Amino acid sequence: MNYDLILSKIKPTEEEVVQNKKIASEIIDFLNLICKEEKIPGEALLVGSVAKETFLTGKSDIDIFISFPLDTPTSYLKEKGLYLGYKASEKFNGKASEHYASHPYLTSEIEGFKIDFVPCYKIANSSQIKSAVDRTILHTKYITENISEKQKDEVILLKKFMSETKTYGSEYKVGGFAGYLCELLILKYNTFENLLKEVSNWKYGTVIDLESFGTSKLFKDPLITIDPTDKNRNVAAALRLETLSDFIISARNYLNSSDNEKTLYFDELNKNISLNEIKSQFIQRESKTFIINFKTPDVVSDSLHPQLKKTVDSISEKLEREEFSLFKSDYWTDEEEIAIFIFEMEVYRLNNIKIHYGPKIFAKKACEQFENAHGKDKCYPLNDFLVLNVERQFKTFNEFINFILTSENSHIIKIGKNIKDNLINSYELLDLDEYLNNYPINDNFINFLDDFLNPGQYLKR
Amino acid sequence: MNYDLILSKIKPTEEEVVQNKKIASEIIDFLNLICKEEKIPGEALLVGSVAKETFLTGKSDIDIFISFPLDTPTSYLKEKGLYLGYKASEKFNGKASEHYASHPYLTSEIEGFKIDFVPCYKIANSSQIKSAVDRTILHTKYITENISEKQKDEVILLKKFMSETKTYGSEYKVGGFAGYLCELLILKYNTFENLLKEVSNWKYGTVIDLESFGTSKLFKDPLITIDPTDKNRNVAAALRLETLSDFIISARNYLNSSDNEKTLYFDELNKNISLNEIKSQFIQRESKTFIINFKTPDVVSDSLHPQLKKTVDSISEKLEREEFSLFKSDYWTDEEEIAIFIFEMEVYRLNNIKIHYGPKIFAKKACEQFENAHGKDKCYPLNDFLVLNVERQFKTFNEFINFILTSENSHIIKIGKNIKDNLINSYELLDLDEYLNNYPINDNFINFLDDFLNPGQYLKR
Repeated sequence: MNYDLILSKIKPTEEEVVQNKKIASEIIDFLNLICKEEKIPGEALLVGSVAKETFLTGKSDIDIFISFPLDTPTSYLKEKGLYLGYKASEKFNGKASEHYASHPYLTSEIEGFKIDFVPCYKIANSSQIKSAVDRTILHTKYITENISEKQKDEVILLKKFMSETKTYGSEYKVGGFAGYLCELLILKYNTFENLLKEVSNWKYGTVIDLESFGTSKLFKDPLITIDPTDKNRNVAAALRLETLSDFIISARNYLNSSDNEKTLYFDELNKNISLNEIKSQFIQRESKTFIINFKTPDVVSDSLHPQLKKTVDSISEKLEREEFSLFKSDYWTDEEEIAIFIFEMEVYRLNNIKIHYGPKIFAKKACEQFENAHGKDKCYPLNDFLVLNVERQFKTFNEFINFILTSENSHIIKIGKNIKDNLINSYELLDLDEYLNNYPINDNFINFLDDFLNPGQYLKR
Repeated sequence: MNYDLILSKIKPTEEEVVQNKKIASEIIDFLNLICKEEKIPGEALLVGSVAKETFLTGKSDIDIFISFPLDTPTSYLKEKGLYLGYKASEKFNGKASEHYASHPYLTSEIEGFKIDFVPCYKIANSSQIKSAVDRTILHTKYITENISEKQKDEVILLKKFMSETKTYGSEYKVGGFAGYLCELLILKYNTFENLLKEVSNWKYGTVIDLESFGTSKLFKDPLITIDPTDKNRNVAAALRLETLSDFIISARNYLNSSDNEKTLYFDELNKNISLNEIKSQFIQRESKTFIINFKTPDVVSDSLHPQLKKTVDSISEKLEREEFSLFKSDYWTDEEEIAIFIFEMEVYRLNNIKIHYGPKIFAKKACEQFENAHGKDKCYPLNDFLVLNVERQFKTFNEFINFILTSENSHIIKIGKNIKDNLINSYELLDLDEYLNNYPINDNFINFLDDFLNPGQYLKR
């Protein structure tokens, strides 16, 4: 397979690379000048995919790190980091906004480019790490020193393939492959296609150890990729098993495709969704589907998503424990105003009565205690157990939800701490149908429902 | 507790015993005369509860066995057994009817008494047994030789207690305690009350070995009572665990009762059931309850009951496997015309779609086979499994039943061989409500429904 045509569409032009590097270099020079003038012991440098020349066309994030000596107080580093960012943003007429990762950093839009200003410590090796971002400089150095021009193209192919199969990105929402991990995979297997051939045969716990550190036994993850800059770190630690599975399946599907089909993997999946189509698919499944709609709290994406996931998983587990039967549940959020839980039920309504099992008949003492606790007149033997009929606490899905989503009872489930108040105070429980017919539905949500109905659709063409 | 008053109601009077023995003796004398005259090598003798004087008043079955030498051909024995029975029945103006156990025997009503004429082999010990009834003579001999007058009263108390708690009788329908087992229990524990104290503490596998044969290790049953006339036989082998559990519970309940309450255990349970009461209890349970109504085949009770039980259990198991959820099922029959299965459902209706699990993603070969079998386009990864959505074969209880109760598909369940044709060809499937409102309902069936709704009610007063 010849990838030239595909690369011509997804690889940044030489001009685009030069433009990115030029503006980065101007800003870095300015920052270093300020540091010198104001006796700030910081040193600005370019890191990330622009430095490594492994970004997709039109998708450059210019990451400028400002590194400080190891003995710099953290408060000083934070303060000067923001100060320098604002200074540069001002100088280049940028539009700045503050963000928070492990500590605050500034993002500015300058001449159409998105620039991140991130303060960090200047470390020589991983043992000196003081903040989570510090190792980025080591990573950038390792890749630029080891990657060939040809391999940069292969990384770009891999990143695009992963973007379109929804396996790219280490943020919690995806749980997928970080850019650095993509680069290491290409360093290991040299080409995109060779990597996919290897991936199609991967087993649980496959080890990639470029520097032969021999430390893979430290990890139990589905994929183990030892960081060449830190033998005690698995670069793939945050890769979710589901996303790894998706990548393996998409690799197999890709390798079994014709060249024509293969090119489609580098384009956005062609979807043709209408709300009516979605509705009719749900009707065909004959499942009762419920929506819990509530206000999303003002927290960052990487904190919001795990909290939503944890909450919907906990409700799902408790539903099953109450003998409702769930086909599938999920969450969605626009990350600004709305968060939604969706529950597609196999069984959402139960009879009124169930059997509560006590001890074995032969255990006399235990039987006496059970009878005293539940009333002797109600207990009876069933096979060789003492049992009684009890009324179900929850006969319908609605009864259950309206019970647990109250301040008195919400301790029964695990709720993300930032969403708890919003969920309890603002939730609305509706049939999916009712929701779709009466609430404003945006395209993003329709797309989510389409994905809910058609899992795995991104993994094939 | 003084049992005199109770015994005065349930123990046969001396006159009743004499009457039974007198008619038995007259018939036996007649039979032995005929044998002598016609040179038939048979010898009639009285066995069973009349011989042992352990029957309840008004409940005497006079068992007359006609024993033949061990070298008698079976065909001759069967023929002469019936012949002699008819002869006696004729002589005493009885009303005869033939029955079948291990071989045919005659029952006749003579002067208001029910007389069984059973041919058997004259054995000296259990090793000589040729037919299942042969050991009855040994049992009768053992009990009459070992039981005291006082112990006969205790047996009568025990049999009545068990009758009213529905644990008496070794026929399949009850799966309870045979008369001989009751007698052995009293020989072991001397009094009814002492027995119940022991029973309240029984563990699984309790051993009673009156003759100290030491052969209990041969058996794995819930209760092991070595036959004093056969060290290799457990008299309690046919006792069902459920019925043993019922007996243990009723014993505990009895011992915790006041003397006034205790006397109630020897009376029929006072029930006050109406069809409307039954209906309203079912409504309160909010379960969907179904009736399968069909014609009962013409087979003996001890063959019919296990076949009905096996069939309803098999349907119940398959229902659960198809993800319907059953609260309780049972069968009922009038043993003449109607047989009924009843299914009270927790879940009787499911959604249209379910997940069919395939191999783990990492198993490439197995995944390929799974994709080839089910269509690659339908398969998708779920966690680390390859799965697909499939349409449920059965969305409702009715769909399932109407599918399996056909000649093509009935092999899916285990159906008793004698009921199969009747079930498939004559079954009607109805809601319980529909059935109760439109079909003739007899008191026996109402009583069954009451027991279905109120399990364990006989075990307490």
